Amino acid sequence: MATTTAAERRDADRASYDVFLVGCPSRLVLERISDRWVALLLAALSDGPKRYSELGRKVAGVSPKMLTQTLRALERDGLVEREVTPSVPVRVDYRLTSLGEGLHRAVLAVKDWAEAHVDEVLAARDRYDAESG
Amino acid sequence: MATTTAAERRDADRASYDVFLVGCPSRLVLERISDRWVALLLAALSDGPKRYSELGRKVAGVSPKMLTQTLRALERDGLVEREVTPSVPVRVDYRLTSLGEGLHRAVLAVKDWAEAHVDEVLAARDRYDAESG
Repeated sequence: MATTTAAERRDADRASYDVFLVGCPSRLVLERISDRWVALLLAALSDGPKRYSELGRKVAGVSPKMLTQTLRALERDGLVEREVTPSVPVRVDYRLTSLGEGLHRAVLAVKDWAEAHVDEVLAARDRYDAESG
Repeated sequence: MATTTAAERRDADRASYDVFLVGCPSRLVLERISDRWVALLLAALSDGPKRYSELGRKVAGVSPKMLTQTLRALERDGLVEREVTPSVPVRVDYRLTSLGEGLHRAVLAVKDWAEAHVDEVLAARDRYDAESG
């Protein structure tokens, strides 16, 4: 058979993934995960499954529309899965997949950096604005 | 003196920085660094100082306007500094500060994850779309 599956083509392409290139799939993934709500939802799910309403409370400022859109995008990317409990009313929980857990560990380094160094960044902004103004 | 400096107030606030809170400065920083051009520019500068034109070539797809805006924002945040060589014509290089190098190391984990797992994400999208379609 001369045909190749999508998976085989991806294996062949994989060595050449490079986020610096326009149109490289790895850049699409980088763009998706650099969405601020993605980083915050991964962090919010990192200590266990949560219901939609719990996520909305934990991630302050997210609108219902953005929360729904972001959860659907994460589910499509294989990072989050829905667990439906057939109770009355039906209960739906969201949880990280193992793929999502791996991404969360990577994003955690950025979140930790932001919380640890925000004071240095704000001080730099003050200096820059004083010199420019 | 009963007055406190901005730096002292920040030290007092620091323990309570939390990216989940609306208006927390750490969330502002997280939002800035989740800009895709920021991640790519930090990576492009990680192997040494570069001129504006070199950065434009390395980060494929960035417009001159976005490159200028992003470099200025990174400089304001204390992550990048300009080095001016008084030659004819004047030469300007951009380099990471030590603060910028620390952020780059954190972002690198995300870039590496994207390049390593893009195939799993694309396969998950195929499955999702096949089931939804």
